[in-house]
Amino acid sequence: MSITQVSATKAFGGWHKQFSHQSDATSCEMRFAIFLPPQAQHQSVPVLYWLSGLTCTDENFMQKAAAFKVAAQLGIAIVAPDTSPRGDNVPDDDNHAYDFGLGAGFYLNATQPPFNQHYRMYDYVVNELPSVIEANFGVNQQRAISGHSMGGHGALSIAFKNLDKYSSVSAFSPICQPTTCPWGQKAFSGYLGQDKQSWLQYDSSALITQLTDSNKHIPALVDQGSDDNFLAEQLNPQALVAAAKTVNYPLELRIQPGYDHSYFFISSFIEDHLHFHAANFKA
Amino acid sequence: MSITQVSATKAFGGWHKQFSHQSDATSCEMRFAIFLPPQAQHQSVPVLYWLSGLTCTDENFMQKAAAFKVAAQLGIAIVAPDTSPRGDNVPDDDNHAYDFGLGAGFYLNATQPPFNQHYRMYDYVVNELPSVIEANFGVNQQRAISGHSMGGHGALSIAFKNLDKYSSVSAFSPICQPTTCPWGQKAFSGYLGQDKQSWLQYDSSALITQLTDSNKHIPALVDQGSDDNFLAEQLNPQALVAAAKTVNYPLELRIQPGYDHSYFFISSFIEDHLHFHAANFKA
Repeated sequence: MSITQVSATKAFGGWHKQFSHQSDATSCEMRFAIFLPPQAQHQSVPVLYWLSGLTCTDENFMQKAAAFKVAAQLGIAIVAPDTSPRGDNVPDDDNHAYDFGLGAGFYLNATQPPFNQHYRMYDYVVNELPSVIEANFGVNQQRAISGHSMGGHGALSIAFKNLDKYSSVSAFSPICQPTTCPWGQKAFSGYLGQDKQSWLQYDSSALITQLTDSNKHIPALVDQGSDDNFLAEQLNPQALVAAAKTVNYPLELRIQPGYDHSYFFISSFIEDHLHFHAANFKA
Repeated sequence: MSITQVSATKAFGGWHKQFSHQSDATSCEMRFAIFLPPQAQHQSVPVLYWLSGLTCTDENFMQKAAAFKVAAQLGIAIVAPDTSPRGDNVPDDDNHAYDFGLGAGFYLNATQPPFNQHYRMYDYVVNELPSVIEANFGVNQQRAISGHSMGGHGALSIAFKNLDKYSSVSAFSPICQPTTCPWGQKAFSGYLGQDKQSWLQYDSSALITQLTDSNKHIPALVDQGSDDNFLAEQLNPQALVAAAKTVNYPLELRIQPGYDHSYFFISSFIEDHLHFHAANFKA
Protein backbone atom coordinates (compact mmCIF):
# COMPACT_ATOMS: atom_id res chain seq x y z
CA MET A 1 0.00 0.00 0.00
CA SER A 2 2.92 2.38 -0.42
CA ILE A 3 2.01 5.57 -2.22
CA THR A 4 4.25 8.25 -3.72
CA GLN A 5 3.44 11.95 -3.58
CA VAL A 6 3.46 13.58 -7.00
CA SER A 7 2.43 17.10 -6.02
CA ALA A 8 1.16 19.11 -3.05
CA THR A 9 -0.49 22.51 -3.39
CA LYS A 10 -2.17 24.57 -0.72
CA ALA A 11 -5.77 25.50 -1.59
CA PHE A 12 -8.52 27.08 0.52
CA GLY A 13 -6.58 26.44 3.70
CA GLY A 14 -6.32 22.74 2.87
CA TRP A 15 -4.24 20.79 0.38
CA HIS A 16 -4.59 19.41 -3.10
CA LYS A 17 -2.23 16.47 -3.51
CA GLN A 18 -1.57 13.88 -6.18
CA PHE A 19 -0.20 10.42 -5.52
CA SER A 20 0.82 7.42 -7.59
CA HIS A 21 0.81 3.82 -6.46
CA GLN A 22 1.04 0.32 -7.83
CA SER A 23 -2.50 -1.02 -8.02
CA ASP A 24 -3.33 -4.66 -7.37
CA ALA A 25 -6.72 -4.23 -9.01
CA THR A 26 -5.50 -2.81 -12.32
CA SER A 27 -1.97 -4.29 -12.32
CA CYS A 28 -0.42 -0.97 -13.22
CA GLU A 29 0.59 2.32 -11.65
CA MET A 30 -2.42 4.50 -10.88
CA ARG A 31 -2.52 8.19 -10.03
CA PHE A 32 -5.18 9.83 -7.91
CA ALA A 33 -5.76 13.29 -6.48
CA ILE A 34 -7.10 14.19 -3.07
CA PHE A 35 -8.35 17.46 -1.64
CA LEU A 36 -7.83 17.51 2.10
CA PRO A 37 -9.86 20.21 3.87
CA PRO A 38 -8.25 22.13 6.74
CA GLN A 39 -10.15 20.01 9.27
CA ALA A 40 -8.22 16.90 8.18
CA GLN A 41 -5.18 18.16 10.05
CA HIS A 42 -6.97 17.67 13.37
CA GLN A 43 -9.78 15.16 12.89
CA SER A 44 -10.87 12.39 10.55
CA VAL A 45 -13.13 13.66 7.79
CA PRO A 46 -15.58 11.92 5.43
CA VAL A 47 -14.66 11.36 1.79
CA LEU A 48 -16.48 12.14 -1.43
CA TYR A 49 -15.24 9.94 -4.28
CA TRP A 50 -15.52 11.71 -7.62
CA LEU A 51 -15.53 9.69 -10.86
CA SER A 52 -14.75 11.68 -13.98
CA GLY A 53 -15.99 11.31 -17.53
CA LEU A 54 -14.48 10.24 -20.84
CA THR A 55 -10.95 11.54 -21.60
CA CYS A 56 -10.43 12.88 -18.07
CA THR A 57 -7.68 12.18 -15.56
CA ASP A 58 -7.55 12.96 -11.84
CA GLU A 59 -7.00 16.63 -12.77
CA ASN A 60 -10.17 17.83 -14.50
CA PHE A 61 -12.47 17.92 -11.51
CA MET A 62 -9.83 19.28 -9.18
CA GLN A 63 -8.97 22.17 -11.51
CA LYS A 64 -12.37 23.03 -12.94
CA ALA A 65 -15.20 22.08 -10.58
CA ALA A 66 -14.85 24.93 -8.06
CA ALA A 67 -15.59 22.46 -5.27
CA PHE A 68 -12.87 23.26 -2.77
CA LYS A 69 -14.36 26.29 -1.05
CA VAL A 70 -17.44 24.48 0.22
CA ALA A 71 -15.57 21.20 0.78
CA ALA A 72 -13.23 23.19 3.03
CA GLN A 73 -16.17 24.76 4.85
CA LEU A 74 -17.93 21.42 5.32
CA GLY A 75 -14.80 19.43 6.14
CA ILE A 76 -15.10 16.92 3.31
CA ALA A 77 -12.15 15.29 1.57
CA ILE A 78 -12.54 14.68 -2.16
CA VAL A 79 -10.76 11.86 -3.99
CA ALA A 80 -10.54 11.72 -7.77
CA PRO A 81 -9.11 8.59 -9.40
CA ASP A 82 -8.09 8.34 -13.03
CA THR A 83 -10.68 7.16 -15.57
CA SER A 84 -8.81 4.05 -16.70
CA PRO A 85 -5.62 2.12 -16.17
CA ARG A 86 -2.63 3.79 -17.86
CA GLY A 87 0.84 2.95 -19.02
CA ASP A 88 2.83 1.40 -21.83
CA ASN A 89 1.58 -2.08 -21.02
CA VAL A 90 -2.09 -1.15 -20.92
CA PRO A 91 -3.93 -1.87 -24.18
CA ASP A 92 -5.81 1.01 -25.78
CA ASP A 93 -8.49 1.11 -28.42
CA ASP A 94 -6.94 0.27 -31.79
CA ASN A 95 -7.93 3.66 -33.15
CA HIS A 96 -7.27 5.53 -29.90
CA ALA A 97 -10.94 6.43 -29.74
CA TYR A 98 -11.92 8.84 -26.98
CA ASP A 99 -14.75 6.60 -25.80
CA PHE A 100 -12.99 3.26 -25.33
CA GLY A 101 -9.70 2.18 -23.81
CA LEU A 102 -7.42 4.75 -22.17
CA GLY A 103 -9.47 7.43 -20.43
CA ALA A 104 -12.62 5.35 -20.84
CA GLY A 105 -12.54 2.53 -18.31
CA PHE A 106 -16.29 2.74 -17.56
CA TYR A 107 -15.78 1.69 -13.92
CA LEU A 108 -16.28 -2.03 -14.61
CA ASN A 109 -14.19 -5.20 -14.47
CA ALA A 110 -13.44 -6.25 -18.06
CA THR A 111 -13.74 -9.92 -18.91
CA GLN A 112 -12.53 -9.82 -22.52
CA PRO A 113 -8.89 -10.04 -23.58
CA PRO A 114 -6.75 -8.00 -23.99
CA PHE A 115 -8.62 -5.71 -21.55
CA ASN A 116 -9.34 -8.09 -18.69
CA GLN A 117 -5.90 -7.85 -17.10
CA HIS A 118 -5.84 -4.10 -16.44
CA TYR A 119 -9.35 -2.70 -16.99
CA ARG A 120 -10.66 -3.44 -13.53
CA MET A 121 -11.75 0.02 -12.46
CA TYR A 122 -14.75 -1.36 -10.57
CA ASP A 123 -12.55 -3.27 -8.15
CA TYR A 124 -10.16 -0.35 -7.98
CA VAL A 125 -12.79 2.24 -7.08
CA VAL A 126 -14.93 0.06 -4.81
CA ASN A 127 -12.25 -1.74 -2.86
CA GLU A 128 -8.62 -0.82 -3.40
CA LEU A 129 -8.83 2.97 -3.54
CA PRO A 130 -10.86 3.40 -0.31
CA SER A 131 -8.41 1.07 1.44
CA VAL A 132 -5.50 3.19 0.24
CA ILE A 133 -7.22 6.42 1.23
CA GLU A 134 -8.31 5.23 4.65
CA ALA A 135 -4.85 3.83 5.41
CA ASN A 136 -2.90 6.92 4.39
CA PHE A 137 -4.99 10.02 5.19
CA GLY A 138 -6.87 11.56 8.07
CA VAL A 139 -10.26 10.33 6.91
CA ASN A 140 -12.96 8.19 8.43
CA GLN A 141 -15.05 5.47 6.79
CA GLN A 142 -17.94 7.71 5.84
CA ARG A 143 -18.06 7.77 2.05
CA ALA A 144 -20.15 9.39 -0.63
CA ILE A 145 -19.76 9.00 -4.37
CA SER A 146 -20.45 11.24 -7.33
CA GLY A 147 -19.36 11.68 -10.91
CA HIS A 148 -19.97 13.12 -14.35
CA SER A 149 -21.18 11.45 -17.55
CA MET A 150 -19.28 8.12 -17.73
CA GLY A 151 -18.37 8.87 -14.11
CA GLY A 152 -22.01 9.52 -13.28
CA HIS A 153 -22.71 6.03 -14.60
CA GLY A 154 -19.85 4.81 -12.43
CA ALA A 155 -21.09 6.56 -9.30
CA LEU A 156 -24.68 5.38 -9.66
CA SER A 157 -23.89 1.80 -10.64
CA ILE A 158 -21.26 1.41 -7.93
CA ALA A 159 -23.54 2.91 -5.28
CA PHE A 160 -26.49 0.72 -6.27
CA LYS A 161 -24.29 -2.39 -5.95
CA ASN A 162 -22.77 -1.23 -2.66
CA LEU A 163 -25.42 0.60 -0.66
CA ASP A 164 -23.65 -0.33 2.56
CA LYS A 165 -20.43 1.41 1.53
CA TYR A 166 -21.81 4.90 0.80
CA SER A 167 -24.14 7.23 2.65
CA SER A 168 -25.32 9.05 -0.49
CA VAL A 169 -24.76 9.17 -4.25
CA SER A 170 -25.06 11.92 -6.82
CA ALA A 171 -24.29 12.46 -10.48
CA PHE A 172 -24.06 15.12 -13.16
CA SER A 173 -25.26 14.18 -16.65
CA PRO A 174 -24.84 10.45 -16.00
CA ILE A 175 -25.08 7.72 -18.61
CA CYS A 176 -28.18 6.29 -16.96
CA GLN A 177 -28.82 3.26 -19.16
CA PRO A 178 -25.53 2.29 -20.82
CA THR A 179 -26.94 -0.94 -22.26
CA THR A 180 -29.12 1.07 -24.67
CA CYS A 181 -26.85 3.95 -25.78
CA PRO A 182 -23.91 4.06 -28.21
CA TRP A 183 -21.24 4.88 -25.62
CA GLY A 184 -22.34 2.07 -23.33
CA GLN A 185 -22.89 -0.51 -26.03
CA LYS A 186 -19.44 0.10 -27.50
CA ALA A 187 -17.75 -0.09 -24.11
CA PHE A 188 -19.68 -3.07 -22.78
CA SER A 189 -19.17 -5.02 -26.03
CA GLY A 190 -15.46 -4.43 -25.90
CA TYR A 191 -14.92 -4.98 -22.20
CA LEU A 192 -17.63 -7.56 -21.42
CA GLY A 193 -18.31 -9.31 -24.72
CA GLN A 194 -21.54 -10.02 -26.54
CA ASP A 195 -23.52 -11.63 -23.71
CA LYS A 196 -25.84 -8.74 -23.00
CA GLN A 197 -27.01 -10.33 -19.79
CA SER A 198 -23.57 -9.63 -18.36
CA TRP A 199 -23.99 -5.95 -19.18
CA LEU A 200 -26.88 -5.51 -16.79
CA GLN A 201 -24.63 -5.73 -13.75
CA TYR A 202 -23.31 -2.28 -14.70
CA ASP A 203 -26.53 -0.65 -15.88
CA SER A 204 -27.91 1.72 -13.24
CA SER A 205 -31.43 1.63 -14.64
CA ALA A 206 -31.41 -2.18 -14.36
CA LEU A 207 -29.61 -2.29 -11.02
CA ILE A 208 -31.97 0.10 -9.27
CA THR A 209 -34.97 -2.15 -9.95
CA GLN A 210 -33.37 -4.80 -7.74
CA LEU A 211 -33.22 -2.50 -4.72
CA THR A 212 -36.50 -3.60 -3.20
CA ASP A 213 -35.49 -3.18 0.42
CA SER A 214 -36.25 0.47 1.12
CA ASN A 215 -34.42 0.29 4.44
CA LYS A 216 -31.16 0.05 2.52
CA HIS A 217 -31.80 2.92 0.13
CA ILE A 218 -29.35 5.83 0.23
CA PRO A 219 -30.32 9.29 -1.06
CA ALA A 220 -29.57 9.89 -4.74
CA LEU A 221 -29.40 13.24 -6.56
CA VAL A 222 -28.95 13.68 -10.32
CA ASP A 223 -28.44 17.00 -12.14
CA GLN A 224 -28.92 17.11 -15.89
CA GLY A 225 -28.60 20.14 -18.18
CA SER A 226 -31.46 20.57 -20.63
CA ASP A 227 -29.11 21.80 -23.39
CA ASP A 228 -26.63 18.93 -23.05
CA ASN A 229 -25.50 17.81 -26.53
CA PHE A 230 -25.41 14.21 -25.35
CA LEU A 231 -28.77 14.13 -23.62
CA ALA A 232 -30.89 12.71 -26.43
CA GLU A 233 -28.52 10.01 -27.64
CA GLN A 234 -26.49 8.91 -24.65
CA LEU A 235 -27.82 9.80 -21.20
CA ASN A 236 -31.51 8.83 -20.78
CA PRO A 237 -32.22 10.07 -17.24
CA GLN A 238 -35.93 9.33 -17.73
CA ALA A 239 -35.15 5.61 -17.88
CA LEU A 240 -33.47 5.85 -14.51
CA VAL A 241 -36.33 7.83 -12.99
CA ALA A 242 -38.86 5.31 -14.31
CA ALA A 243 -36.83 2.40 -12.98
CA ALA A 244 -36.44 4.10 -9.59
CA LYS A 245 -40.19 4.47 -9.33
CA THR A 246 -40.74 0.73 -9.63
CA VAL A 247 -39.04 0.29 -6.25
CA ASN A 248 -39.87 3.70 -4.75
CA TYR A 249 -36.20 4.56 -4.71
CA PRO A 250 -35.56 8.12 -3.35
CA LEU A 251 -33.88 9.54 -6.43
CA GLU A 252 -34.20 13.21 -7.32
CA LEU A 253 -33.61 14.24 -10.93
CA ARG A 254 -33.21 17.96 -11.52
CA ILE A 255 -33.32 19.24 -15.09
CA GLN A 256 -31.30 22.46 -15.15
CA PRO A 257 -32.58 24.64 -17.99
CA GLY A 258 -30.00 25.91 -20.47
CA TYR A 259 -27.00 24.06 -19.07
CA ASP A 260 -24.77 21.80 -21.13
CA HIS A 261 -22.39 18.88 -20.50
CA SER A 262 -19.35 20.93 -19.44
CA TYR A 263 -17.53 21.70 -16.22
CA PHE A 264 -19.22 25.11 -16.30
CA PHE A 265 -22.40 23.14 -15.55
CA ILE A 266 -20.75 21.04 -12.86
CA SER A 267 -19.22 24.06 -11.15
CA SER A 268 -22.61 25.81 -11.14
CA PHE A 269 -24.16 23.07 -8.99
CA ILE A 270 -21.32 21.22 -7.25
CA GLU A 271 -21.94 23.12 -4.03
CA ASP A 272 -25.48 21.74 -3.93
CA HIS A 273 -24.04 18.24 -4.21
CA LEU A 274 -21.50 18.85 -1.46
CA HIS A 275 -24.24 20.10 0.87
CA PHE A 276 -26.39 17.10 -0.12
CA HIS A 277 -23.64 14.64 0.76
CA ALA A 278 -22.71 16.51 3.94
CA ALA A 279 -26.30 16.30 5.13
CA ASN A 280 -26.18 12.52 4.76
CA PHE A 281 -22.90 11.91 6.58
CA LYS A 282 -23.38 10.97 10.19
CA ALA A 283 -22.45 13.80 12.51
CA MET B 1 -15.99 46.20 -34.58
CA SER B 2 -17.73 43.06 -35.74
CA ILE B 3 -17.20 40.10 -33.44
CA THR B 4 -17.91 36.42 -33.99
CA GLN B 5 -19.23 34.14 -31.27
CA VAL B 6 -17.07 31.05 -30.80
CA SER B 7 -18.92 29.44 -27.89
CA ALA B 8 -21.69 30.13 -25.39
CA THR B 9 -22.15 28.15 -22.18
CA LYS B 10 -24.52 28.80 -19.33
CA ALA B 11 -22.82 29.10 -15.96
CA PHE B 12 -24.12 30.23 -12.56
CA GLY B 13 -27.25 31.65 -14.14
CA GLY B 14 -25.16 33.77 -16.51
CA TRP B 15 -23.11 32.99 -19.60
CA HIS B 16 -19.54 32.21 -20.47
CA LYS B 17 -18.92 33.17 -24.09
CA GLN B 18 -15.92 33.31 -26.38
CA PHE B 19 -15.59 35.66 -29.33
CA SER B 20 -13.05 36.29 -32.06
CA HIS B 21 -12.53 39.54 -33.91
CA GLN B 22 -10.04 41.24 -36.20
CA SER B 23 -7.97 43.56 -34.04
CA ASP B 24 -6.70 46.91 -35.27
CA ALA B 25 -4.21 47.08 -32.44
CA THR B 26 -2.53 43.72 -33.05
CA SER B 27 -3.30 43.37 -36.78
CA CYS B 28 -4.50 39.81 -36.33
CA GLU B 29 -7.52 37.86 -35.17
CA MET B 30 -7.88 37.92 -31.40
CA ARG B 31 -10.05 35.74 -29.18
CA PHE B 32 -11.43 36.79 -25.82
CA ALA B 33 -13.80 35.30 -23.26
CA ILE B 34 -16.48 37.07 -21.26
CA PHE B 35 -18.49 35.98 -18.26
CA LEU B 36 -21.80 37.79 -18.23
CA PRO B 37 -23.58 37.62 -14.85
CA PRO B 38 -27.35 37.14 -14.79
CA GLN B 39 -27.85 40.85 -14.09
CA ALA B 40 -26.42 41.73 -17.53
CA GLN B 41 -29.67 40.62 -19.12
CA HIS B 42 -31.52 43.53 -17.52
CA GLN B 43 -29.00 46.24 -16.64
CA SER B 44 -25.52 47.41 -17.54
CA VAL B 45 -22.88 45.89 -15.29
CA PRO B 46 -19.28 46.84 -14.51
CA VAL B 47 -16.40 44.87 -16.00
CA LEU B 48 -13.33 43.28 -14.45
CA TYR B 49 -10.57 42.80 -17.02
CA TRP B 50 -8.40 39.79 -16.22
CA LEU B 51 -4.91 39.49 -17.71
CA SER B 52 -3.44 35.99 -17.62
CA GLY B 53 0.11 34.81 -17.21
CA LEU B 54 2.70 33.17 -19.44
CA THR B 55 1.43 30.35 -21.73
CA CYS B 56 -2.24 31.11 -21.01
CA THR B 57 -5.11 31.88 -23.39
CA ASP B 58 -8.54 33.30 -22.61
CA GLU B 59 -9.47 29.91 -21.16
CA ASN B 60 -7.30 29.36 -18.07
CA PHE B 61 -8.92 31.88 -15.77
CA MET B 62 -12.43 31.09 -16.94
CA GLN B 63 -12.02 27.36 -16.32
CA LYS B 64 -9.86 27.33 -13.20
CA ALA B 65 -10.32 30.47 -11.11
CA ALA B 66 -13.69 29.64 -9.53
CA ALA B 67 -14.70 33.27 -9.95
CA PHE B 68 -18.17 32.97 -11.46
CA LYS B 69 -20.23 32.31 -8.35
CA VAL B 70 -19.35 35.57 -6.66
CA ALA B 71 -19.20 37.51 -9.94
CA ALA B 72 -22.79 36.36 -10.51
CA GLN B 73 -23.79 37.41 -7.01
CA LEU B 74 -22.14 40.82 -7.33
CA GLY B 75 -23.22 41.44 -10.92
CA ILE B 76 -19.74 41.84 -12.38
CA ALA B 77 -18.79 40.86 -15.93
CA ILE B 78 -15.30 39.41 -16.39
CA VAL B 79 -13.34 39.74 -19.63
CA ALA B 80 -10.24 37.67 -20.34
CA PRO B 81 -8.17 38.46 -23.44
CA ASP B 82 -5.47 36.24 -24.85
CA THR B 83 -1.87 36.77 -23.66
CA SER B 84 -0.40 37.64 -27.05
CA PRO B 85 -1.30 38.04 -30.69
CA ARG B 86 -1.75 34.68 -32.44
CA GLY B 87 -1.80 33.24 -35.91
CA ASP B 88 0.40 32.02 -38.73
CA ASN B 89 1.63 35.52 -39.53
CA VAL B 90 2.58 36.38 -35.97
CA PRO B 91 6.29 35.87 -35.22
CA ASP B 92 7.18 33.64 -32.27
CA ASP B 93 10.36 33.21 -30.30
CA ASP B 94 12.89 31.35 -32.43
CA ASN B 95 13.00 28.51 -29.92
CA HIS B 96 9.31 28.69 -29.07
CA ALA B 97 10.23 29.61 -25.50
CA TYR B 98 7.33 29.77 -23.06
CA ASP B 99 8.39 33.20 -21.80
CA PHE B 100 8.68 35.19 -25.05
CA GLY B 101 6.58 35.45 -28.19
CA LEU B 102 3.29 33.57 -28.45
CA GLY B 103 1.55 33.39 -25.08
CA ALA B 104 3.96 35.96 -23.68
CA GLY B 105 2.99 39.39 -24.98
CA PHE B 106 3.76 41.18 -21.68
CA TYR B 107 0.97 43.74 -22.26
CA LEU B 108 3.24 46.27 -23.98
CA ASN B 109 3.63 47.82 -27.43
CA ALA B 110 6.70 46.29 -29.05
CA THR B 111 9.03 48.61 -30.92
CA GLN B 112 11.50 46.07 -32.27
CA PRO B 113 11.06 44.16 -35.52
CA PRO B 114 9.74 41.60 -36.23
CA PHE B 115 7.51 42.01 -33.16
CA ASN B 116 6.39 45.63 -33.52
CA GLN B 117 3.64 44.92 -36.05
CA HIS B 118 1.55 42.51 -33.94
CA TYR B 119 2.79 42.62 -30.35
CA ARG B 120 0.74 45.62 -29.27
CA MET B 121 -1.13 44.12 -26.34
CA TYR B 122 -0.96 47.38 -24.39
CA ASP B 123 -3.05 49.22 -26.97
CA TYR B 124 -5.31 46.19 -27.31
CA VAL B 125 -6.08 45.89 -23.62
CA VAL B 126 -6.22 49.59 -22.77
CA ASN B 127 -8.16 50.90 -25.76
CA GLU B 128 -9.50 48.44 -28.31
CA LEU B 129 -10.84 45.69 -26.06
CA PRO B 130 -12.88 47.98 -23.78
CA SER B 131 -14.35 49.64 -26.88
CA VAL B 132 -15.34 46.26 -28.26
CA ILE B 133 -16.80 45.13 -24.94
CA GLU B 134 -18.72 48.34 -24.29
CA ALA B 135 -20.14 48.37 -27.83
CA ASN B 136 -21.30 44.75 -27.85
CA PHE B 137 -22.41 43.78 -24.33
CA GLY B 138 -24.69 45.03 -21.59
CA VAL B 139 -21.90 46.65 -19.60
CA ASN B 140 -21.25 50.15 -18.37
CA GLN B 141 -17.96 52.08 -18.35
CA GLN B 142 -16.98 51.10 -14.84
CA ARG B 143 -13.82 49.02 -15.14
CA ALA B 144 -11.45 47.21 -12.83
CA ILE B 145 -8.36 45.29 -13.82
CA SER B 146 -6.55 42.30 -12.36
CA GLY B 147 -4.19 39.57 -13.45
CA HIS B 148 -1.69 36.88 -12.56
CA SER B 149 2.09 36.82 -12.85
CA MET B 150 2.85 38.38 -16.28
CA GLY B 151 -0.80 39.44 -16.20
CA GLY B 152 -0.33 40.91 -12.73
CA HIS B 153 2.45 43.02 -14.22
CA GLY B 154 0.04 43.92 -17.01
CA ALA B 155 -2.77 44.89 -14.65
CA LEU B 156 -0.61 47.02 -12.37
CA SER B 157 1.37 48.77 -15.11
CA ILE B 158 -1.74 49.47 -17.17
CA ALA B 159 -3.65 50.76 -14.16
CA PHE B 160 -0.80 53.02 -13.03
CA LYS B 161 -0.66 54.55 -16.52
CA ASN B 162 -4.44 54.92 -16.76
CA LEU B 163 -5.79 55.76 -13.33
CA ASP B 164 -8.77 57.50 -14.93
CA LYS B 165 -9.89 54.33 -16.76
CA TYR B 166 -10.17 51.94 -13.78
CA SER B 167 -11.74 52.21 -10.35
CA SER B 168 -9.42 49.64 -8.74
CA VAL B 169 -6.58 47.25 -9.57
CA SER B 170 -5.45 43.96 -8.11
CA ALA B 171 -2.96 41.23 -8.89
CA PHE B 172 -1.92 37.73 -7.94
CA SER B 173 1.82 36.98 -7.88
CA PRO B 174 2.64 39.89 -10.21
CA ILE B 175 6.01 40.55 -11.81
CA CYS B 176 6.42 43.76 -9.84
CA GLN B 177 9.72 45.02 -11.23
CA PRO B 178 10.21 43.49 -14.68
CA THR B 179 13.27 45.61 -15.46
CA THR B 180 15.27 43.72 -12.84
CA CYS B 181 14.13 40.08 -13.25
CA PRO B 182 14.98 37.47 -15.91
CA TRP B 183 11.45 37.20 -17.38
CA GLY B 184 11.13 40.95 -17.73
CA GLN B 185 14.64 41.57 -19.01
CA LYS B 186 14.26 38.91 -21.69
CA ALA B 187 10.88 40.23 -22.80
CA PHE B 188 11.74 43.92 -22.68
CA SER B 189 15.02 43.35 -24.56
CA GLY B 190 13.23 41.48 -27.29
CA TYR B 191 10.18 43.70 -27.61
CA LEU B 192 11.65 47.12 -26.69
CA GLY B 193 15.36 46.85 -27.48
CA GLN B 194 18.41 47.68 -25.41
CA ASP B 195 17.47 51.21 -24.33
CA LYS B 196 16.60 50.46 -20.74
CA GLN B 197 15.07 53.88 -20.27
CA SER B 198 12.24 52.73 -22.56
CA TRP B 199 11.61 49.77 -20.30
CA LEU B 200 10.57 51.94 -17.37
CA GLN B 201 7.26 52.86 -19.01
CA TYR B 202 6.14 49.27 -18.32
CA ASP B 203 7.71 48.76 -14.88
CA SER B 204 5.10 49.04 -12.14
CA SER B 205 7.65 49.78 -9.44
CA ALA B 206 8.97 52.68 -11.52
CA LEU B 207 5.56 53.88 -12.68
CA ILE B 208 4.06 54.07 -9.21
CA THR B 209 6.69 56.54 -8.04
CA GLN B 210 5.34 59.04 -10.57
CA LEU B 211 1.85 58.96 -9.06
CA THR B 212 2.32 61.93 -6.79
CA ASP B 213 -1.27 63.21 -6.96
CA SER B 214 -3.04 61.26 -4.24
CA ASN B 215 -6.41 62.47 -5.47
CA LYS B 216 -5.99 60.27 -8.52
CA HIS B 217 -4.92 57.10 -6.68
CA ILE B 218 -7.14 54.04 -7.09
CA PRO B 219 -7.10 51.20 -4.54
CA ALA B 220 -4.60 48.42 -5.26
CA LEU B 221 -4.53 44.91 -3.78
CA VAL B 222 -1.77 42.33 -4.35
CA ASP B 223 -1.82 38.72 -3.15
CA GLN B 224 1.42 36.76 -3.15
CA GLY B 225 1.97 33.16 -2.01
CA SER B 226 4.92 32.66 0.30
CA ASP B 227 5.80 29.30 -1.29
CA ASP B 228 5.72 30.56 -4.87
CA ASN B 229 8.62 29.01 -6.83
CA PHE B 230 9.06 32.25 -8.76
CA LEU B 231 8.97 34.63 -5.81
CA ALA B 232 12.69 34.99 -5.18
CA GLU B 233 13.88 35.31 -8.77
CA GLN B 234 11.05 36.96 -10.69
CA LEU B 235 8.36 38.72 -8.69
CA ASN B 236 9.85 41.17 -6.12
CA PRO B 237 6.69 42.51 -4.44
CA GLN B 238 8.83 44.29 -1.85
CA ALA B 239 10.17 46.60 -4.55
CA LEU B 240 6.62 47.60 -5.42
CA VAL B 241 5.68 48.16 -1.79
CA ALA B 242 8.79 50.30 -1.23
CA ALA B 243 8.07 52.31 -4.36
CA ALA B 244 4.43 52.79 -3.34
CA LYS B 245 5.52 54.19 0.01
CA THR B 246 7.49 56.98 -1.64
CA VAL B 247 4.23 58.48 -2.91
CA ASN B 248 1.92 57.16 -0.17
CA TYR B 249 0.11 55.04 -2.72
CA PRO B 250 -2.69 52.93 -1.13
CA LEU B 251 -1.38 49.50 -2.10
CA GLU B 252 -2.02 46.48 0.09
CA LEU B 253 0.32 43.49 -0.25
CA ARG B 254 -0.88 40.29 1.39
CA ILE B 255 1.62 37.45 1.76
CA GLN B 256 -0.44 34.24 1.85
CA PRO B 257 1.52 31.62 3.78
CA GLY B 258 2.06 28.26 2.07
CA TYR B 259 0.48 29.17 -1.27
CA ASP B 260 2.25 28.76 -4.61
CA HIS B 261 1.99 30.28 -8.11
CA SER B 262 -0.92 28.13 -9.37
CA TYR B 263 -4.60 28.60 -10.06
CA PHE B 264 -5.27 26.75 -6.79
CA PHE B 265 -3.83 29.89 -5.16
CA ILE B 266 -5.85 32.24 -7.37
CA SER B 267 -9.10 30.36 -6.76
CA SER B 268 -8.50 30.47 -3.00
CA PHE B 269 -8.55 34.27 -2.96
CA ILE B 270 -10.35 35.41 -6.12
CA GLU B 271 -13.54 36.07 -4.19
CA ASP B 272 -11.68 38.57 -2.02
CA HIS B 273 -10.59 40.37 -5.16
CA LEU B 274 -14.09 40.42 -6.60
CA HIS B 275 -15.46 41.91 -3.39
CA PHE B 276 -12.59 44.42 -3.37
CA HIS B 277 -13.38 45.57 -6.89
CA ALA B 278 -17.13 45.58 -6.27
CA ALA B 279 -16.63 47.87 -3.28
CA ASN B 280 -14.84 50.36 -5.50
CA PHE B 281 -17.36 50.49 -8.33
CA LYS B 282 -19.78 53.36 -8.04
CA ALA B 283 -23.24 52.23 -6.97
